[in-house]
Amino acid sequence: MSTPITTQIATSILNVKGFTFAAAEAGIKSSGRNDCALIRSNIPAACAGVFTKNKVIAAPLIVSKPRIATGLCQAVLINSGNANACTGAAGLEHAQQSSAVLAAELQIDEGLIALASTGVIGVPLPVERLTAAVPALCSARSADQAEAVAEAIMTTDGFSKTSQRTIVVAGKSCQILGVAKGAGMIHPNMATMLGFVMTDISIDPAVLQPALTHAVDDSFNSITVDGDTSTNDMVLILANGAAENEMVVAGSDEAQLFQTALNEVLLDLAKMIVSDGEGATKLVQIQLTGATDAAQAKIAARSVATSSLVKTAFFGEDANWGRIIAAVGYADVDVDPNKIDIFFDDIQVVAEGITTGAQQEELATKVLKQAEFSVRINLNLGQGCADYYTSDLTYEYVKINADYRT
Amino acid sequence: MSTPITTQIATSILNVKGFTFAAAEAGIKSSGRNDCALIRSNIPAACAGVFTKNKVIAAPLIVSKPRIATGLCQAVLINSGNANACTGAAGLEHAQQSSAVLAAELQIDEGLIALASTGVIGVPLPVERLTAAVPALCSARSADQAEAVAEAIMTTDGFSKTSQRTIVVAGKSCQILGVAKGAGMIHPNMATMLGFVMTDISIDPAVLQPALTHAVDDSFNSITVDGDTSTNDMVLILANGAAENEMVVAGSDEAQLFQTALNEVLLDLAKMIVSDGEGATKLVQIQLTGATDAAQAKIAARSVATSSLVKTAFFGEDANWGRIIAAVGYADVDVDPNKIDIFFDDIQVVAEGITTGAQQEELATKVLKQAEFSVRINLNLGQGCADYYTSDLTYEYVKINADYRT
Repeated sequence: MSTPITTQIATSILNVKGFTFAAAEAGIKSSGRNDCALIRSNIPAACAGVFTKNKVIAAPLIVSKPRIATGLCQAVLINSGNANACTGAAGLEHAQQSSAVLAAELQIDEGLIALASTGVIGVPLPVERLTAAVPALCSARSADQAEAVAEAIMTTDGFSKTSQRTIVVAGKSCQILGVAKGAGMIHPNMATMLGFVMTDISIDPAVLQPALTHAVDDSFNSITVDGDTSTNDMVLILANGAAENEMVVAGSDEAQLFQTALNEVLLDLAKMIVSDGEGATKLVQIQLTGATDAAQAKIAARSVATSSLVKTAFFGEDANWGRIIAAVGYADVDVDPNKIDIFFDDIQVVAEGITTGAQQEELATKVLKQAEFSVRINLNLGQGCADYYTSDLTYEYVKINADYRT
Repeated sequence: MSTPITTQIATSILNVKGFTFAAAEAGIKSSGRNDCALIRSNIPAACAGVFTKNKVIAAPLIVSKPRIATGLCQAVLINSGNANACTGAAGLEHAQQSSAVLAAELQIDEGLIALASTGVIGVPLPVERLTAAVPALCSARSADQAEAVAEAIMTTDGFSKTSQRTIVVAGKSCQILGVAKGAGMIHPNMATMLGFVMTDISIDPAVLQPALTHAVDDSFNSITVDGDTSTNDMVLILANGAAENEMVVAGSDEAQLFQTALNEVLLDLAKMIVSDGEGATKLVQIQLTGATDAAQAKIAARSVATSSLVKTAFFGEDANWGRIIAAVGYADVDVDPNKIDIFFDDIQVVAEGITTGAQQEELATKVLKQAEFSVRINLNLGQGCADYYTSDLTYEYVKINADYRT
């Protein structure tokens, strides 16, 4: 939920104190566009991370996970065009090599560097091109280049993705800036979801990981284009304290404010990713209420959000509640078919499991003609609720994914 | 696996002793084609059933499940064009009413009648049309009309589906005849999967349910077009003993032979359903081996078989093993990425988690140009294996499911 009273949205990116950014062309992508990027904090920052649950994990994640687990990170090196996944022992060496080169150039401890890659799976990383670009990246660093980072990490993305909130903590203005890439995980070969959050807030490191996990759960883990998750997905947050606010501690009002702002930033980015899902023409919110608990609500919402039949009906602008009720029914949750209510925005099409009539369905069809709408499903069993964001499934999706090969 | 030595395949449908069949036009479908069918055994037959696991269950299943559980069934009344699902108390009354009319006409106990419906969800069943057709159905019954039943129960099916095996038990020839409908569960509004097996074998009723469950698990439960399961899915078997063979008992060689034949019949029908998945141009077998156990093998195979990304790559005839390895990786099973081997038919594209090179991939691309091929994935962890059948995801799938509404 948006809370404009406490968090502020700017029209252009505001600098985040103590952070510099750079992007460059290493020649990994054949397109000749920028394909590597650097994020650097002036001092080692408190950090937290969320990583893919896929058991096939790319080399940069293997290297970065234990480093992020130490709680400190100062620089992130990202490349697009090659995922360095399924590349065996050589891939791991390449990751370590690029981190060593950056550490030397920045004169910081190698353990303070995180790595992220996105692009084609199974092809050796042209590591010499990446390391050759490192000096240029380091010298080009500037406080106002976050947008360049967002652009350099794009693969199949149609647009770059940034979101920012400002919060005031005891009179000090703190920035929370997120950049992300991904087109709805519809190209695991080329469209890993990456997210990086830079904040100058001073915050107890113990707050950071749970806050990130919570925000990711309600954003990146609540979107779907096709349900596939990549070998390279990761979201990192770096908090360097350069805003010089009194340190935010767990359980405080300020911690809650930070959580709200972080949730907003990540939800913004997640919705951009769904909108950017290739071929997507609609952004649909699945609002599931009345489940026996929140976990069940999420399972049921996900079942609807990932149903190919439901998603093609959205594309066809068809208020096909039969497909929705069937998708709820085969989710592994408690359901009483005779209690289910379904709305498209405010138009009720199902009451206690049966149709509300042709007139209502006609009204609902108008809702589906919108580029954005909600499907509200009430199981009427308990208090559990969850939101999920999905897109429609279109000709374009099939075309891109059938024709496309890196 | 096919065992031609022991089971025989005929080129046309052979009568199953003691069974008669009929089809008629009740006017439930607007197309004017036959839309109701009757299967009748001369005497009450031993029976077993497998029903949808969807929690939203159609009225005919609510009526039929407890009746099949008694172990005896003599007649099955099926209608197409209307699923009688999400129709509330009225739907239940309609189901009971149609069964009462048939019981009176056939002069058998109502409890011996099973009902099945397939078609649009959420629209009241025009029960008076169905009951009006019952006398014609009963008088038209004939031993050679099984094919007419297979045709009458079609909805979006492109072709009717029957399969038969003959086995010899102690000198007596026994028929096992299956009819089914379904276009890969890609239209839960209109394409419920229904299967009916008629056999004249004399068999211990205690053997029947486990045999059916086992055969369904390796056939109808091992196919996918889009993973959606319907409110109306059911598979029934009726065994009336009219072949007068010595009764087949549990654990005997004859019981094993029967199981083999039943597996073959249902697998034939299941593969026809995948081939008939709307828009499908390819039938792909996912052969998963080397999992820690059979259950894990099935989960991993299903993850690959249901991935939209993998299925669009099949359509694009792209040997995109990155998508396959990612789909294995996000399945909830034990996986060591460095041990995975992947083949397209006999062409190995991945060895111990990494590519076998561009030349092999080129050979694999030729395999994908075939209308039927296998993807063989060896996790190299244990002895668990499972097969899954899937189709490609095509423009046509999106077109039909977006445009189509009953």
